[in-house]
Amino acid sequence: MTTDNLQLKKLNVALAERSYPLYIGHGLLGRPELLTPYISGREVMIVSNTTVAPLYLERVVAMLADYRVGTVVLPDGEQYKTLAVLDDLFSALLEQRFSRQVTIIALGGGVVGDMSGFAAACYQRGVPFVQIPTTLLAQVDSSVGGKTAVNHPLGKNMIGAFYQPRCVIADTATLDTLDDRQFSAGIAEVIKYGLIRDREFFDWLELNMAALLARDPAALIYAVERSCQNKAEVVAEDEHEQGVRAWLNLGHTFGHAIETGMGYGEWLHGEAIAAGTYMAADLSARLGWLVQGDVERIESLLKQARLPVRGPKALAVERMLELMAVDKKVQDGSIRLVLLQGIGAATVTDQFDPALLRATLEQCRT
Amino acid sequence: MTTDNLQLKKLNVALAERSYPLYIGHGLLGRPELLTPYISGREVMIVSNTTVAPLYLERVVAMLADYRVGTVVLPDGEQYKTLAVLDDLFSALLEQRFSRQVTIIALGGGVVGDMSGFAAACYQRGVPFVQIPTTLLAQVDSSVGGKTAVNHPLGKNMIGAFYQPRCVIADTATLDTLDDRQFSAGIAEVIKYGLIRDREFFDWLELNMAALLARDPAALIYAVERSCQNKAEVVAEDEHEQGVRAWLNLGHTFGHAIETGMGYGEWLHGEAIAAGTYMAADLSARLGWLVQGDVERIESLLKQARLPVRGPKALAVERMLELMAVDKKVQDGSIRLVLLQGIGAATVTDQFDPALLRATLEQCRT
Repeated sequence: MTTDNLQLKKLNVALAERSYPLYIGHGLLGRPELLTPYISGREVMIVSNTTVAPLYLERVVAMLADYRVGTVVLPDGEQYKTLAVLDDLFSALLEQRFSRQVTIIALGGGVVGDMSGFAAACYQRGVPFVQIPTTLLAQVDSSVGGKTAVNHPLGKNMIGAFYQPRCVIADTATLDTLDDRQFSAGIAEVIKYGLIRDREFFDWLELNMAALLARDPAALIYAVERSCQNKAEVVAEDEHEQGVRAWLNLGHTFGHAIETGMGYGEWLHGEAIAAGTYMAADLSARLGWLVQGDVERIESLLKQARLPVRGPKALAVERMLELMAVDKKVQDGSIRLVLLQGIGAATVTDQFDPALLRATLEQCRT
Repeated sequence: MTTDNLQLKKLNVALAERSYPLYIGHGLLGRPELLTPYISGREVMIVSNTTVAPLYLERVVAMLADYRVGTVVLPDGEQYKTLAVLDDLFSALLEQRFSRQVTIIALGGGVVGDMSGFAAACYQRGVPFVQIPTTLLAQVDSSVGGKTAVNHPLGKNMIGAFYQPRCVIADTATLDTLDDRQFSAGIAEVIKYGLIRDREFFDWLELNMAALLARDPAALIYAVERSCQNKAEVVAEDEHEQGVRAWLNLGHTFGHAIETGMGYGEWLHGEAIAAGTYMAADLSARLGWLVQGDVERIESLLKQARLPVRGPKALAVERMLELMAVDKKVQDGSIRLVLLQGIGAATVTDQFDPALLRATLEQCRT
C-alpha cells in the first residue's frame, strides 16, 4: 500500500487541567504545521540521544526555522535516566541562556521523553513541553499520561512528576529505523492494552502480529492509535493513578524488579514487562482467575513478538520479592499487583497467598 | 504580656487547585491537633537541618506518636540547596522504605522548606507535604505560595516546582532561638510586603521595628500574619506568576545576582534582598518614580533592621548585569525588574534606560 492513503489520526487526550492533541501518522516530521501551533515562545530546546539525533534531529530543526533552537544529545540507554544526566540537561539549558519561555521538545524514546518531560516540569518551575516519540514503546506508552521521571539506584522512576505535554507527534515512519529488539519491546506494551481492557484488540494482535513485525504502516498506525486510545481513556478517568490507572502497570511490578535487579539497561523495559506480564498471568491462573488456555494464548503472543516470558535466572526469588517491595504501588507494606480475571479484564489486588507468588517467581525463572 | 493572651491565628491560603490553612501562634509545637488532621497516611518523614534538629526535632516527633516517623537531618545553609543533597534526601526516603503514602514535614528555614517541598513534589511523582517553618524568613515568605526549588551553580532556584503544602504551622516561639543575623534577614521580606502593596504596614513597621527586633510575641504574630496575608492575597490572584505575583520579587533580581555571584551561603538571602530592595528604590528614584524622601525612609528602615543597603564591592557592575540576565524574570532577553512608584506601589517593567541601572549598580556597591 502507498503511504499516501494513510490518514493522519488525531486523538484528544482529555484531562481535567489540560487537554492536548496526539497526532499519529506516517511522515509527520515533514509537517511543521502540526508542531508550531503548540510552541508559545520563540525559544526551543530539542533533547535527543546519540542514536536518534543522527537520524532525525536535522529534520526537526528544519521544522523550526523561525525559532531560536538549541539542542542537547544525551547518551542512549535506561542506565542514563538519572538525576546526574538530568543535571547536565539543566546545565545545557542555563548555559544556552534559555528562559522560562523555552519549549522543550523530546525527540527519542521513553528515556528521552521521561527525562525531557521531567526537566520541563522542573526547569524554572515548569516550561512547555512537546513530545516526538521515535520508538514504538514511547509512542504507545509515554506519549499519553504525563508521567515523567528519572531512576534512582534504589528504585525505578522514583523521582518524577505528572506533567502533560502541549502536544505529541507520533510519526510511525520513525519506527523504520528501530532495531528489532527495541521494536519488540514496544509490542509488549501494545499487548498489555489488549490484556487489561480490550479483548477485541488482543484478538486483532493475534491475527496481525506478522504485519506489525513487518512494520506495515497501516498496521502500525492502527496499533499505535488503538493503544493510545486505550491509555487516553484510562488516564482521562484517573490522571493521578488513584484507581484504574494502576491497570496500566500490568507486569510492571515484576518488570521493574527485573530492571532494577539486573541494572538499568541490561533488560529493555519492554522485555522486562513482557516477562512480568507472563508472571502476572501465571499468578492469576494459580489463583484460579485465568484459565490455562488464556495463559497459553498470552505466552504464545509474547513469544511471537520475540519477547521473553521468563525472568533472569540471576535474580533469586528472595531478591525479586525484596525489589518488588519498594515498588510505588506498595501500600502499608503489602505488594499490590495488577492481575487478570480474563483477557481484557485487569484487577488490582494485594489479596493473594504469598506462597503462590513465590511459586510463580520460582516457575518463571529462565 | 503573657503568651496566654496571644491568639491562634488561622489564615486560609486560597488557591484554584487546593486551599490550605496556615496557623500562626506562639507555642504551636505543643499542639498536635493542628498538625495531624493533615497527615493522611501512617508514614511521616521529617526533614530538618543540623541547627534546627537539636532544638525542635524531638518535640515534633513527640507530636506524631501514632505514626511511623523517619528523620533526615540536612547540612545547614543555602550552599547545600543542591540537586546532590536532594538526591541524598531521596536515598533516605527509599532506604527507609517510605511509600507514596508518606507525608514529608519540613522543619526548618527556607532551605529546608524549599528542598523538602521539592522532594515531596518529585518523590514517587508527588507525596503530601507539611511545613513547620522555624525562621522568620520562612514563616513570612516560603510558607505561602508553594514555590519549591534547589539552586544550580548557574542560577538560584532554577530547578523546582510549584507545589502546595497540606498545611503550614508557623510557631513564633521558634524564633526565640534564631540568631540576630537570620532574624534580620527575615525582616527584609517583611518590609517588602509594606513596600509593594501595604503602605499602612510599612508605617506600622517604622513604629514597631524595635518591638520586632526585641521579638515581642504580639509584634511577631502581627508581622507574620500581615506578611502572610499580603502574600496569600497576591498568590491567590496569580498562583503561577504570570502577573502581580512578580511583585513579590522586589529586590530579588538584584539579590539573586548577589547570592549567585558571591557563592550561595556567603550572603544570607534576606541580606541580599535588603540590598536589592534598596537598589530597586534607588533606580526607581532615578526614573523619577519615587521621591528622595521615600528612598530615605526605606534606607532608614532597612538599616534599623540591621540590614545591608549596599551590594558587595567584590561584584563588579558588569558581573552583576551578567548574573541578572539569567534571572527567571528575563523575557526575550530583557531584564525585567520590580520597581516602586511609591511606598506601597510596586510595578514590573523592562522599560528603563540601561544607563540608569548601571548608575544604580555603581552607586550601590559597598
